Amino acid sequence: MTIKMGVIGLGYWGPNLVRNFCTLSESTLVMGCDLQVERCQKIASLYPSIRFTQNVQEVFESKEINAVAIATPVRTHYPLVKQALAAGKHVLITKPFTDNIAHAEELISLAEQKGLVLQVDHTFIYHPAVEKLKDIVVRGELGDVYYFDSVRINLGLFQADASVTWDLAPHDVSIMEHLISRPVQWVQAVGARHAGQKFESMAYITVQFADNILGHCHVNWLALMKIRLITLGGSRRMVVYDDNLVTEKVKIYDKGVTLNSIEGLYDALVQYRQGDMHAPAIENSEALAREIRHFVHCIKQGTTPITDGRSGLRVVRILAAAEESIRQEGKRIPF
Amino acid sequence: MTIKMGVIGLGYWGPNLVRNFCTLSESTLVMGCDLQVERCQKIASLYPSIRFTQNVQEVFESKEINAVAIATPVRTHYPLVKQALAAGKHVLITKPFTDNIAHAEELISLAEQKGLVLQVDHTFIYHPAVEKLKDIVVRGELGDVYYFDSVRINLGLFQADASVTWDLAPHDVSIMEHLISRPVQWVQAVGARHAGQKFESMAYITVQFADNILGHCHVNWLALMKIRLITLGGSRRMVVYDDNLVTEKVKIYDKGVTLNSIEGLYDALVQYRQGDMHAPAIENSEALAREIRHFVHCIKQGTTPITDGRSGLRVVRILAAAEESIRQEGKRIPF
Amino acid sequence: MTIKMGVIGLGYWGPNLVRNFCTLSESTLVMGCDLQVERCQKIASLYPSIRFTQNVQEVFESKEINAVAIATPVRTHYPLVKQALAAGKHVLITKPFTDNIAHAEELISLAEQKGLVLQVDHTFIYHPAVEKLKDIVVRGELGDVYYFDSVRINLGLFQADASVTWDLAPHDVSIMEHLISRPVQWVQAVGARHAGQKFESMAYITVQFADNILGHCHVNWLALMKIRLITLGGSRRMVVYDDNLVTEKVKIYDKGVTLNSIEGLYDALVQYRQGDMHAPAIENSEALAREIRHFVHCIKQGTTPITDGRSGLRVVRILAAAEESIRQEGKRIPF
Amino acid sequence: MTIKMGVIGLGYWGPNLVRNFCTLSESTLVMGCDLQVERCQKIASLYPSIRFTQNVQEVFESKEINAVAIATPVRTHYPLVKQALAAGKHVLITKPFTDNIAHAEELISLAEQKGLVLQVDHTFIYHPAVEKLKDIVVRGELGDVYYFDSVRINLGLFQADASVTWDLAPHDVSIMEHLISRPVQWVQAVGARHAGQKFESMAYITVQFADNILGHCHVNWLALMKIRLITLGGSRRMVVYDDNLVTEKVKIYDKGVTLNSIEGLYDALVQYRQGDMHAPAIENSEALAREIRHFVHCIKQGTTPITDGRSGLRVVRILAAAEESIRQEGKRIPF
Repeated sequence: MTIKMGVIGLGYWGPNLVRNFCTLSESTLVMGCDLQVERCQKIASLYPSIRFTQNVQEVFESKEINAVAIATPVRTHYPLVKQALAAGKHVLITKPFTDNIAHAEELISLAEQKGLVLQVDHTFIYHPAVEKLKDIVVRGELGDVYYFDSVRINLGLFQADASVTWDLAPHDVSIMEHLISRPVQWVQAVGARHAGQKFESMAYITVQFADNILGHCHVNWLALMKIRLITLGGSRRMVVYDDNLVTEKVKIYDKGVTLNSIEGLYDALVQYRQGDMHAPAIENSEALAREIRHFVHCIKQGTTPITDGRSGLRVVRILAAAEESIRQEGKRIPF
Repeated sequence: MTIKMGVIGLGYWGPNLVRNFCTLSESTLVMGCDLQVERCQKIASLYPSIRFTQNVQEVFESKEINAVAIATPVRTHYPLVKQALAAGKHVLITKPFTDNIAHAEELISLAEQKGLVLQVDHTFIYHPAVEKLKDIVVRGELGDVYYFDSVRINLGLFQADASVTWDLAPHDVSIMEHLISRPVQWVQAVGARHAGQKFESMAYITVQFADNILGHCHVNWLALMKIRLITLGGSRRMVVYDDNLVTEKVKIYDKGVTLNSIEGLYDALVQYRQGDMHAPAIENSEALAREIRHFVHCIKQGTTPITDGRSGLRVVRILAAAEESIRQEGKRIPF
Repeated sequence: MTIKMGVIGLGYWGPNLVRNFCTLSESTLVMGCDLQVERCQKIASLYPSIRFTQNVQEVFESKEINAVAIATPVRTHYPLVKQALAAGKHVLITKPFTDNIAHAEELISLAEQKGLVLQVDHTFIYHPAVEKLKDIVVRGELGDVYYFDSVRINLGLFQADASVTWDLAPHDVSIMEHLISRPVQWVQAVGARHAGQKFESMAYITVQFADNILGHCHVNWLALMKIRLITLGGSRRMVVYDDNLVTEKVKIYDKGVTLNSIEGLYDALVQYRQGDMHAPAIENSEALAREIRHFVHCIKQGTTPITDGRSGLRVVRILAAAEESIRQEGKRIPF
Repeated sequence: MTIKMGVIGLGYWGPNLVRNFCTLSESTLVMGCDLQVERCQKIASLYPSIRFTQNVQEVFESKEINAVAIATPVRTHYPLVKQALAAGKHVLITKPFTDNIAHAEELISLAEQKGLVLQVDHTFIYHPAVEKLKDIVVRGELGDVYYFDSVRINLGLFQADASVTWDLAPHDVSIMEHLISRPVQWVQAVGARHAGQKFESMAYITVQFADNILGHCHVNWLALMKIRLITLGGSRRMVVYDDNLVTEKVKIYDKGVTLNSIEGLYDALVQYRQGDMHAPAIENSEALAREIRHFVHCIKQGTTPITDGRSGLRVVRILAAAEESIRQEGKRIPF
């Protein structure tokens, strides 16, 4: 069985969905949809076999189409996903799932009632490096996990309708939540707006998980260079994922032994422990391609995606609490 | 005039003071003092012309000695500095100045009454890279300063008697305070203890400065690799100081221009602005040597050190507020 | 006028040509050709509007087609380019141009007689980083150029029918020749075969250019990690192009001034000069896309490509001399 | 027994010898010697217990002194070492051993007749990173060794009386010779002089060892940035030593497995194999301190140093052949 797809929203992310659904042998892209006709025309020139429409109802009403991928602004997620599910389509919805907890819960229920796959496009969860991190955590290589720290900064496109918390933090929060896999106890955040912006362009988000695990994300789209660094520290080892590197993206640091204990040497003291480092080979494949294969596989097998609606909701809860904390001057928001 | 020095405390930092006071042509090291006789003996074998004592009073009572450098645990700073000033000695006191605001204020007053130089050994302030950062800020190269962010993580020696806030954060807080040079509005912090520690081994400290400048420091001595990274973002440029690099420690990033606006390409969008980067040559000299030269110069000229008692007090205030915030579950501590 | 293209050879490089000719608005890809039908089928699934053939004559005989891009093994270049030119098609031929100087000369003459564009696909010449290097050299920023040094190592696919000299070195030799732009005086090379290989898997190639400029290329496909580093040193500045970096690929080093002349300090001496470094913003666009735009532009304007047949021949001369030197145990081959 | 030392030559390297002999508990520095009185005075201020002389005979005639370390220009090595050995002193002589094979052979014989330790100060051989490389090679971790490649470039102090071959290459040639440990079959080199220099300021030196192992060193003191990179490739693994890094100086690359064999993707092909990387912890101690401990230990135990005269001679042979090859326009010099 080939999954017949529609893609809704052909702005910046949609074309990547188009390319991947076209390349995957188990899916066919039947229809593309965007309000802007030029976006449709541009893709049409590359993929002449796809039909295009400006009317989203055409996608939902198509008998041929089994599933839709939606890459539109977050405020449209709730009505579009609801209609798609109502029309019996499996849904891949771009992150963040919704901007609202109640909406997310409603969509999860609807998908479950209908027996449809509802997958949130947290692409990074399918990145080979994040899969390796998950594998390391699950196998207990870190010992007790102590903390998760991420930094994601670059000069981004200022969103007209969202803060950096809703725009960049979904990446890190989804990775953090996936790796830690424990209940959240509280969320606390601080943000800053600069240069007359209506929304925060930088934020520090702290998340206290059960088992005394501290999570922290720094997101910032004011920065003029790019850092994408995730650190996960444990009692036995630490693992670092530097997405700026072409190879050796993931490095595992051993605790090491005392190498130097000569008193009187400041440097010796500060560097007094150093262990081996190991950088496992990471498969060089596109995260989105893997995610889409997973989506198609879940439809075919009737299984639940890794980043299902519930997972998407857990991310939304943390983001919403972070926004709430910023509103309330850094108050801790209990869960 | 040659400044005749005594050094009190010959543990891990003291020997660096000894070496530098011996090397500097304008100072002579007359006496070393430590309770542990082996520490004295070790240094004596290298510097046979220095006298040693286990009794700190001998240093204070020496008519020959003009000034003392004190590198002892923080809880001893107040009594030792007080006695030194009372004995008419100029003082270089290791960081943090005190663990207590009232003590710091008292010592500042005493030094002023006596007309003595009181310098806090915030070594990094004298690092050529930090001097370059200060120069960049002062000349307005960044435009309006938006934020200061620092990460200082490594596997440190666990202090028996202090948290990471009092041990590592003085470095970053002193640099931040020096570069931003504005009143603090509030401090907020979160920390974590692991593995049965009595004190926090990691902390995130947020400092709101006037003029909407946000400061943030991540200090962590649980980490199994070393990061020492300071970022200062402004409306026109960003500057990054990576102390892990041997050369090109300081990089200035221009805002750049839109290089690529092709819609439909995710990467193009995310990286859509890129500017020139400039790494100024940084003098390759030891920060401590420069600091000590400054101390001796201030004594000779009767001038106030850059890191005088007041500067040390400003750092102590922020550290104390951070500790207080951690105690009060992340509450904002107003200034 | 839209250029109607045929692409011959759909192995590892051909699909990149296909994608780019399809994307470029000024060209249309009419026909693809490969002896292996599966390769055609694979591309057909993505680009259903292209016709495919296993018979190269069909491409040459097509009245519709103006130009062909050929990405086949080097031994087939001479007959295929000859037929294409004879059939009146403009030609983009993958590197190296030919494995034989006489053949290259004949093809150049034929293209000139016919008034057809003959471009050698030295893709790197169109890389924004190499364009920046050329610009730096041409504007005299380096002062007198002293040397060119390149290292290109990685674990490559062992070619069944060619040495590393003919496989990897064309990249560096073409960049070197393009940047130096001076007559070659002699070539000398040493290579090594390992593990029962029939051809060299590593080689060091030295090229003496006029004006006392020394060129040197290290190519190696035995390496288990990747280095792609080009250094160009001059009397005033040095420029380094590190293709492993995602940003800051090109760095310009100033000569600097004497920072430290304290005798008795070994490190001070070795590092005794350090200047500013400047990393210009490099456009983030695909070299092949730029090259193909140039090819189409030359056809339309009747102009000569940067990497025309003569340029391709200069590269072939150096490669052939390097091979000859390896055969003759490292003898210098005069030009 | 404490070894009583004299140090001859207090220019740029001598003070490091002074410091280390003073620090080592098993040796005492009795006398320093340099023709320039200011150099003596400078050190005297730091180490008041050392006697100084401008007359080298005083060192040789001292009954107290057991051993001398000589750090003078290479042309003085032969007469000074000869006199020292004749006077019954053990000798540590700075690199290169001599500028002349016959002289080296004579000194080796003399030391053997006298039963004295003659050690050449090839400091890098005692660097913990090089020890690790040697260990990796000896344990067969690389499989069959295929090649050694080194790059050592920076803006050095132009020597008035020596080429880069005699100044920088001793470092790499000694490391190469130590790691490969096989007979040399031939040496070939090319160099260049620029800017009116009398001696080569850059050179490429190729050394063919037995068992089809190719060695190559690029030395260059014209460069405006620093690279110190050694690569050792084998049939099973590759090891890279990057001396520019503060940590992770040594990295071992596994051969890996085919990760990606999708035809039609250029990048996939080029990066088609990638293995794990492992960076062993390297002790953070000073190479010279270790070397001097070894020297003192050899004197006490009557054992032969790792870098004895014969080892120093092997290095001199390669350097002399490289110079000869440059003189003879790149001719291979057989051994």
